[in-house]
Amino acid sequence: MNAAVPAKPFFFLKPTTSYLVASVPPASPAAIVIPRESNDVHHEVELGVVIGQRVKDVAPTDAMAAVAGYVLALDMTARDLQAAAKKEGHPWAQSKGYDTFTPVSSFIHKSAVPDPHNLTLWCLVDGQPRQRGSTSQMIFNIPQLISFVSSIMTLEPGDVILTGTPEGVGPVKPGGTIECGLEGPSVAGTPATLARFLFRIEKAGPKL
Amino acid sequence: MNAAVPAKPFFFLKPTTSYLVASVPPASPAAIVIPRESNDVHHEVELGVVIGQRVKDVAPTDAMAAVAGYVLALDMTARDLQAAAKKEGHPWAQSKGYDTFTPVSSFIHKSAVPDPHNLTLWCLVDGQPRQRGSTSQMIFNIPQLISFVSSIMTLEPGDVILTGTPEGVGPVKPGGTIECGLEGPSVAGTPATLARFLFRIEKAGPKL
Ligand SMILES: [Mg+2]
Ligand SMILES: [Mg+2]
Ligand SMILES: [Mg+2]
Repeated sequence: MNAAVPAKPFFFLKPTTSYLVASVPPASPAAIVIPRESNDVHHEVELGVVIGQRVKDVAPTDAMAAVAGYVLALDMTARDLQAAAKKEGHPWAQSKGYDTFTPVSSFIHKSAVPDPHNLTLWCLVDGQPRQRGSTSQMIFNIPQLISFVSSIMTLEPGDVILTGTPEGVGPVKPGGTIECGLEGPSVAGTPATLARFLFRIEKAGPKL
Repeated sequence: MNAAVPAKPFFFLKPTTSYLVASVPPASPAAIVIPRESNDVHHEVELGVVIGQRVKDVAPTDAMAAVAGYVLALDMTARDLQAAAKKEGHPWAQSKGYDTFTPVSSFIHKSAVPDPHNLTLWCLVDGQPRQRGSTSQMIFNIPQLISFVSSIMTLEPGDVILTGTPEGVGPVKPGGTIECGLEGPSVAGTPATLARFLFRIEKAGPKL
């Protein structure tokens, strides 16, 4: 994103109504909906950390005990609306919070993820590679993120912390598809797939 | 707030963990906690609209049917952190989202509020008047706000929309108190109190 590396993490809130659960084949893929008022919705593939215990002011050294598991997620963002909001010093809630703007995989129990800082995230748009990166590249690691957020707001079971996206974010278009995966280290030369999903992209209809 | 009147409403999200329910006397008042990293936490007394029905893309003419009732609320804001975030184009989640930053009254059923656009909100800090205004002064009325938000995110029962604050916002200090009220039109010369609450103000302790 060419943004300066911040001294502290910062974060926004997405509403639970923005979740979009991946369909299970052979059901046809669920649709991410581009709102009427945006023409530049971007994909950001991210590892989501699912909280399993209520915590407040937790130290980084104790933070991993609060983790129940993980999800593969997309932090869909109306980049045009976000850019306008940034310019005005306005909140990010609208540009990040539309219905369908947080596609998520099934829950991955932490026992399946020995090292969450050594996972590969990838994202294809219309079959073309757009993002590929490792969770080892996070600016702030998972214990630091949990500790920081919990110093501000109590975390509760079921809360999901999205942890940031590798380079390569960009637009999706109506009629297209987006496919993402989360992989652990290779076993006998084969990447260990932890999650994978595919969504369709659709434009919102006219307002009734 | 000397802010320009926007052409469209804008909004941010507060986490449910920021709710602080008023104590019932003779229990001692609950405490709003000023975070370690802020020295300028402001009160914004507001009418909260409580949603009772799941709605998406609801028209203003149909919006009031989605209202279950109201609460008196405070949108506490770390103004120093919010100002820094605005300058950077960063989200408002931290400055608005601390634990205890959304004090609320008991629920007021809509049957007790024939006209939500004709209510008086008041706020005293340390016993001194700071805010007093009418919900008739809202820039966007309640149907317009519900319609706007529901065009972006599905609203669900229990969601609360804070509707903005009258002039007079300002700081609260540790050791002080804040008292607010919501009143309907006077009946026989006496204001009809719909809700009233009192909170203590406390500074966060050192991080453990
Ligand atoms: Mg919610
Ligand atoms: Mg993101
Ligand atoms: Mg406010």
